[in-house]
Amino acid sequence: MSTVGNSTNIFWQESPIGKTERQKLVNQKGCVVWITGLSGSGKSTLACSLSRELYTRGKLSYILDGDNLRHGLNKDLGFKAEDRVENIRRVGEVAKLFADAGLICIASLISPYRKDRDACREMMQDSSFIEASMYLKSWLFTRDPKGLYKLARAGKIKGFTGIDDPYESPLNCEIQLKEKEGECPSPVAMAEEVITYLEGKGFLQSQ
Amino acid sequence: MSTVGNSTNIFWQESPIGKTERQKLVNQKGCVVWITGLSGSGKSTLACSLSRELYTRGKLSYILDGDNLRHGLNKDLGFKAEDRVENIRRVGEVAKLFADAGLICIASLISPYRKDRDACREMMQDSSFIEASMYLKSWLFTRDPKGLYKLARAGKIKGFTGIDDPYESPLNCEIQLKEKEGECPSPVAMAEEVITYLEGKGFLQSQ
Repeated sequence: MSTVGNSTNIFWQESPIGKTERQKLVNQKGCVVWITGLSGSGKSTLACSLSRELYTRGKLSYILDGDNLRHGLNKDLGFKAEDRVENIRRVGEVAKLFADAGLICIASLISPYRKDRDACREMMQDSSFIEASMYLKSWLFTRDPKGLYKLARAGKIKGFTGIDDPYESPLNCEIQLKEKEGECPSPVAMAEEVITYLEGKGFLQSQ
Repeated sequence: MSTVGNSTNIFWQESPIGKTERQKLVNQKGCVVWITGLSGSGKSTLACSLSRELYTRGKLSYILDGDNLRHGLNKDLGFKAEDRVENIRRVGEVAKLFADAGLICIASLISPYRKDRDACREMMQDSSFIEASMYLKSWLFTRDPKGLYKLARAGKIKGFTGIDDPYESPLNCEIQLKEKEGECPSPVAMAEEVITYLEGKGFLQSQ
């Protein structure tokens, strides 16, 4: 029995079927691929492409999209500082559950602050938190698919990351998606870069 | 672009790999088995047994245990009325994500109020929310595995469901676990009752 956070009289319930057994069922290892980057930097493009490429290899993944979760789990949260922190904390906790369930969980969020991303990394006990940083400068400046930068530059959106709110690039991320000879890699090429990493670390098989 | 809850300027991101594809990979249909009942009524026993029996059939399930989640996702919540509501809402939202991911999600929570459970049911678009009610009266009164009833009766825990806080039994649940001829079913027998239901409704195959 323990007191945790604001809860008292709660017990940790151990399940007889654990991560190892679930991983065997799907022949992969549960992990979190955390895609961070500015709005419009290609996070969702990579998430979707990665999900597709993993599927063609028979691997089970699930995308936690920051915007989508704001329609459900995080619909009580806005964009003020403490809400952004709580938003990322919850996505981190849910991503951890998905990794524990044996899935390759693809989290796609701007997640602008290092300390919030690091807090999510620390939730995971092993090296199964993989930070992928979108660093495609030319792409970012030539496209504005949602028209948000235009609105932000005109002062119509406040606290917009990259305009009047900072983005802290990862210092030690596992994967950095960047231009090659001034060219943006294709979505499939980006996905393959992540898959090569996952394969190398043994995540695409259970043992 | 939409305004949802407290969020503005958010977009719904559709993934190319959907629930149908994920279900094919694991040859089952994603759903939520929501186990409700008083403290000590056997919820965790059923959850663990069900998880084990599904595993022996090659099916991928994941347990969302109310107490366990209070160590992570819900550690900011206590037991006052609004916190209990928010606790159940979040578990419902996460269970929905797991079902969408293609898993058989086993949620195990006291969840004492009908309206909170019904709100979780309404989150799901189809008939994939399966309420299982623990209705094992004799078991409940002869055991107190965590010693909580003794503490609650002595007034040392306040707001304890079944003592000084109400439990509203389901009116129309899909599965009711109850005694047969005065005898409690074994954990395996309870799990098989749920599995028979899942099999009958086609959840144990993808098509």
